[in-house]
Amino acid sequence: SVAISLKEDRLKLSYIDRLQYAKNNVAKDLLSIMAKKQTNLCVAADLTIAADVLNLAEQVGPYICCLKTHIDIIEDFHPNFVRRLQEIAEMYEFILMEDRKFADIGKTVQMQYSKGVFNISSWATLVTVHSIFGKGVLDAISEVDLDRRRGVFLLAEASASGTLIDEKYTGETLKIASEYDDLIVGIVCQSPLFRDKPGFLQLTPGVQVGETEDNLGQQYNSPEKVIVEKGGDIAVVGRGITQSQDMRNEAKKYKDLLWAAYLKRIS
Amino acid sequence: SVAISLKEDRLKLSYIDRLQYAKNNVAKDLLSIMAKKQTNLCVAADLTIAADVLNLAEQVGPYICCLKTHIDIIEDFHPNFVRRLQEIAEMYEFILMEDRKFADIGKTVQMQYSKGVFNISSWATLVTVHSIFGKGVLDAISEVDLDRRRGVFLLAEASASGTLIDEKYTGETLKIASEYDDLIVGIVCQSPLFRDKPGFLQLTPGVQVGETEDNLGQQYNSPEKVIVEKGGDIAVVGRGITQSQDMRNEAKKYKDLLWAAYLKRIS
Repeated sequence: SVAISLKEDRLKLSYIDRLQYAKNNVAKDLLSIMAKKQTNLCVAADLTIAADVLNLAEQVGPYICCLKTHIDIIEDFHPNFVRRLQEIAEMYEFILMEDRKFADIGKTVQMQYSKGVFNISSWATLVTVHSIFGKGVLDAISEVDLDRRRGVFLLAEASASGTLIDEKYTGETLKIASEYDDLIVGIVCQSPLFRDKPGFLQLTPGVQVGETEDNLGQQYNSPEKVIVEKGGDIAVVGRGITQSQDMRNEAKKYKDLLWAAYLKRIS
Repeated sequence: SVAISLKEDRLKLSYIDRLQYAKNNVAKDLLSIMAKKQTNLCVAADLTIAADVLNLAEQVGPYICCLKTHIDIIEDFHPNFVRRLQEIAEMYEFILMEDRKFADIGKTVQMQYSKGVFNISSWATLVTVHSIFGKGVLDAISEVDLDRRRGVFLLAEASASGTLIDEKYTGETLKIASEYDDLIVGIVCQSPLFRDKPGFLQLTPGVQVGETEDNLGQQYNSPEKVIVEKGGDIAVVGRGITQSQDMRNEAKKYKDLLWAAYLKRIS
C-alpha cells in the first residue's frame, strides 16, 4: 500500500474538507448535502410501483443524501413520476441516482442515457456505469448536451459472490476514473480503494443489519463495517429499509448508525 | 489450443448438424431457422422511433435469423409495438433478441427482466447478459416463471477498443456458460472460442463493409473475416444496414456475403 500523508487521506478527512478536492460539481453538491444533513445514507428504491417509490422518497427523504433508482423495474412508469421524484429530491435535498449500470459500447450507451421512454439524462443527476467496455462509454456520456449537472459512479468491485471482477480490473477502472475526474463523482466498490483521492466518493452497496446474504449471491455487511473497515463514504441500504414496516424510522436508524461510524472513522 | 476431433469442431459442422448438440430449445430453433432461410445475419435495430424499427423488421425480415433490439432507446415505446414486432418475427421466422446486457446482481436482474414498462421476458426470446457478477444472474433469469422458450447470449469478449475483459474473464465466462447449457444459447465474442461446443452459437457484433471504427471505440470487421477467421456463427450488422438508403437490398447483400463465408468455412 502507498504511503499517504494524513492531510490527504480520504478515510480521515471530513466530508466538508474533501469538497475542495472534488472536480465534479455533483460531487461537491453531494459532499455539501452530506455535511449539512449529517447523512451518508443512500436508499435503494427497489420497488416496482411508482406510488411506492414516491412514498419511500417522502418517508426517507430527510435522512438520505441520495436515492438510488431502477427506473426500468417500475410497472406504471410515467414521465410525471420522475418530475414528482425531482420535486421530492429538491424539497428534502437529496440527489437522484439511476443505477443503470451502463455496460455497452459508447454509441449505444449514449442513446440509452439520452433517449427512450426513460430519458435518464433529463432527470438522473447521477448514473452508474460499468468500465467493462473502456473509456468510450464515458466519452459518450460526456458528449450528451445537457443544461444540468451530471456525474458518474464507476463500478470497480461487486458485492455479489462469484463476481469475475479481479484486482487488475479494479486497478484499470481506477485509472480510467482518474482520467475522467471531471465526470466521475466516485467509485462503487467494497474496499478502501483510492485513499489518496479525497475528491472521489466511495459508494458501497450491500448494507443491512442482521443479514449476510440473499439466495441469489448478494452479500451484506453491517453499517459500521462498511464505513470504517471497507471505506465506504456513502452506504446503500435497500431491503433493510424498504421491507421495514416503518421505513422512516428505519432510515433514521441507519442514518444514525452510518453517521456514527463515519465520525469514528475520521476521529 | 486443444485438439478437437473433426466430427465435433463447431467451426466445421453445418448449422443443421449442430442441432443435435444444442441443449436449449431456442438454440435449436435458431439453428433450424438459419439452415432453412440460409442466413446467419442478425440485424441490430438501433433506431429510436418505433415505426422505424417495425419498418426495418419488415424490410430485412426475409434475410435475417435474428433481430437485435435496444428497447430502452425507443422514444415512443408502447406495448403494442412489441406485439407488432412479434407478429413480424413470426411471419418472417426470425427470433427477437433484446440486447439488454444485464449487468447487476441477480435480484435486480430478475426484476429488470420480468418487470417494468418493457416487461422484457414477455416478448424477448433471447437476451444478452454480462457474466461480470457471476452465476447469480443466470439463476435469477432461470427462476422467472414463463410459458415460453427463452435463451441467453453471454458476453465473453467485446468489440470495443480499450475493453477491460481479459483472457481470464473470457475463460471464466465460458466455464459458467458450460454449467448453464440449458439456458445459454451462445456466446458473444470476437474470436473462435469453444470450438469443442457445437451446441453453442457464437454471436459476433461489429460487422460492417468498408468501416474500421466509429468515434466512440467501436471496431468493425468484414463479413468474411467475422465468419471464417473470427468464428462467428451469427454476425450482427447495425449501421451498415440501418443507415443504408435501401435496407432490404443491403440486408440481402450482407446475408449473401455472410452465408458464402459460412459455406467456405465448413467446406
